Amino acid sequence: MTKLNIQLLLTGDELMSGDVLDSNSCMMADILKMQGLVLQRKVTVGDNLELLIEEIESLSQGADILIINGGLGPTVDDKTAEALASVIHQPLAINEEAMAHLVEWCAARGFELNGPNKKQALLPDGVSIVHNPIGSAPGFSISHNDCLIIATPGVPSEAKSMLSESIMPILARMNPDAKTQVKRLQVFGIGESTLQRTINEALPDWPNNIELGFRAAFPQVEVKLTVHDEAGVKTLPQWQVKLESLFGAHILGEGDIQLPELVVSLLKQQQKQLTLAESCTGGLIAAKITSVAGASQVFEGGFVTYSNAIKEKVLGVSRESLISEGAVSEPVVRDMALGALKVASASLAVAVSGIAGPGGGSDEKPVGTVWLAWGSENKMSSQELFYPGSRDYFQEYVASAALDLIRRELLGIEEAPWYFKRKK
Amino acid sequence: MTKLNIQLLLTGDELMSGDVLDSNSCMMADILKMQGLVLQRKVTVGDNLELLIEEIESLSQGADILIINGGLGPTVDDKTAEALASVIHQPLAINEEAMAHLVEWCAARGFELNGPNKKQALLPDGVSIVHNPIGSAPGFSISHNDCLIIATPGVPSEAKSMLSESIMPILARMNPDAKTQVKRLQVFGIGESTLQRTINEALPDWPNNIELGFRAAFPQVEVKLTVHDEAGVKTLPQWQVKLESLFGAHILGEGDIQLPELVVSLLKQQQKQLTLAESCTGGLIAAKITSVAGASQVFEGGFVTYSNAIKEKVLGVSRESLISEGAVSEPVVRDMALGALKVASASLAVAVSGIAGPGGGSDEKPVGTVWLAWGSENKMSSQELFYPGSRDYFQEYVASAALDLIRRELLGIEEAPWYFKRKK
Repeated sequence: MTKLNIQLLLTGDELMSGDVLDSNSCMMADILKMQGLVLQRKVTVGDNLELLIEEIESLSQGADILIINGGLGPTVDDKTAEALASVIHQPLAINEEAMAHLVEWCAARGFELNGPNKKQALLPDGVSIVHNPIGSAPGFSISHNDCLIIATPGVPSEAKSMLSESIMPILARMNPDAKTQVKRLQVFGIGESTLQRTINEALPDWPNNIELGFRAAFPQVEVKLTVHDEAGVKTLPQWQVKLESLFGAHILGEGDIQLPELVVSLLKQQQKQLTLAESCTGGLIAAKITSVAGASQVFEGGFVTYSNAIKEKVLGVSRESLISEGAVSEPVVRDMALGALKVASASLAVAVSGIAGPGGGSDEKPVGTVWLAWGSENKMSSQELFYPGSRDYFQEYVASAALDLIRRELLGIEEAPWYFKRKK
Repeated sequence: MTKLNIQLLLTGDELMSGDVLDSNSCMMADILKMQGLVLQRKVTVGDNLELLIEEIESLSQGADILIINGGLGPTVDDKTAEALASVIHQPLAINEEAMAHLVEWCAARGFELNGPNKKQALLPDGVSIVHNPIGSAPGFSISHNDCLIIATPGVPSEAKSMLSESIMPILARMNPDAKTQVKRLQVFGIGESTLQRTINEALPDWPNNIELGFRAAFPQVEVKLTVHDEAGVKTLPQWQVKLESLFGAHILGEGDIQLPELVVSLLKQQQKQLTLAESCTGGLIAAKITSVAGASQVFEGGFVTYSNAIKEKVLGVSRESLISEGAVSEPVVRDMALGALKVASASLAVAVSGIAGPGGGSDEKPVGTVWLAWGSENKMSSQELFYPGSRDYFQEYVASAALDLIRRELLGIEEAPWYFKRKK
């Protein structure tokens, strides 16, 4: 693993005032990790020329790479070029390569190049241009104090594409021995600490050269396997197989895959229609499904049946069950699902009824109790779950569990997920 | 306005690895602003003793106040006390006041005080304790290099309450002339730049001593009025009145008020029942309403009628209108709203039908076109709107506009909102 010392200088009044959360440094750390690189220090200052000069000078003395982020825009607030020019004792001058980029960028969008935009080509003499694949502001770099200083734009999408496409290849050349490879797995239904403990217990001989990382991206957890050398690259696949057999269908897939997209794509593949009968999730499952472009191919409609009267009237839920068992009960969710299937002429349904809280709980059915039914007219399953916590957490988790149960049904997975074991 | 130089040192490996977004510094800047205080510099490093020592020493030389955030926990990763002890050349020793806090904190929760927790009372000799109103880790402070160094916990809720309740009073004493007062107004339906331009044009004599700030918190915008002196405090109310008469019902209210909570509370006050007929928003309006605790008092149910067949079958939308005018049309949304009112026996309904994209648009009805109908059986209004953009943006904005129209109906506001003027 390499030892390049990389530091980050972020600039922008909006980052100091509390108005904007800094997401760029997280994104950058994530991309750097793909090559096994780690940020050593982040410094953030406002759009203040003196502070910028001071920080560029002092950070470049300790770092191999200093990435400056922000301050490349066309307005007077944007001071990165001026600060760097002062640090390296060079005048600002129109950079021909930067100007060509700006002319081309504007032409492609049918704009005239205006005065403020031209300022983006006014750079310290002697810098090399770092290509901006999507935006107008060119990046630039120069060596100073034995440190490669690279200026990047503050717009997150531009910073991301410049780092991935233009800067990472430079770092790879400075770091030729790095063989970092990252594999990301998306998991639903097992928490971070249980994942960690289960791996420790079931795979005690987990190799040192495969770094294991977990990131909760509620309601999913991302498991990340990182290797930094040839040996790691070779052994990674067999350990991925071991993880897959350990966690089975709790692994949704690789990369960024999310439950709603996955369910919509399985429904499309199998040419099936889904409908929904929601009580405690109040439309959240429908909103997740319809957030996916093309959902109309697999979803004709759903029902938010919050009150008993609507459950009975719209979905034909038995009044006797509502009275004798209560709205949060197995017969009611089964009736809801069967009713929705009928009204929407769908092939698959999910129904949920539970107590989201903070009010409405009882000793027998405390806040967090929920019944789910899912399946088709011929094969309807049902299960009680228990997710105490905030109303937000409950609704989000139950909606995702409903999608997960439909995914399992579509994939023909008979084994019960681990989260069935959570009890009152 | 004061000139206290405040700097922030954040520590934690998770802040360097890209796994966690730093929200603490934003929250802190926001609270500091309430007293007119501004952060000058933020530095972030991992849980690394040497780097911490170096940064505490160097930042304290330039600052009046150095707030250290993080590294107070019970594990070996937590190194703030050790680093500060080294900087001020004092040994670590059990601090009696910190120990008393820990004992009390554990007792209140029925825990035994364990070894790792005791580590949180092992502090540099000579520090003063800064009370942690909600968590176990005590904060502490000491003067060094003419700078007041204050160590705070990394857990966001603990950092927030310690800053608000324990640290702000200290800063107020260091800064006795500050008379900062902040008034926040929530606005829906007018963008940041239009707000700014309208104020510039309509109120050209806006006083210099009332700072005007805007923060987009999609789909709402927060307008912030800040004053720093006695004169500002006096004139603030009359300028707030001018803003209120300029923007009228686009101002939802003061503080943190959000549309869903506002609509649910108005419905409760007026003892009215809402129902929803959603096509393009796919359940998102229902999810927003039911995210509010107690929504069941004002919401019995809603309908996600995505296909024409379901619109006809469940809500009784006229087949002729669906064929002759299309699903995104005035007669269809009116039928949807009236149908929903009838099926759900509600007093008010909103119906929406539009083209969320990216597919499905035409020359006549491009992506972003949406029809809304809202009101009661006796008074049903309808309007076409146009919100081109991403699918997410469209769904979120249309769902919020639907809630806003119901809010206006409940408040008896007849004047059309400005966003009706957005045209294809």
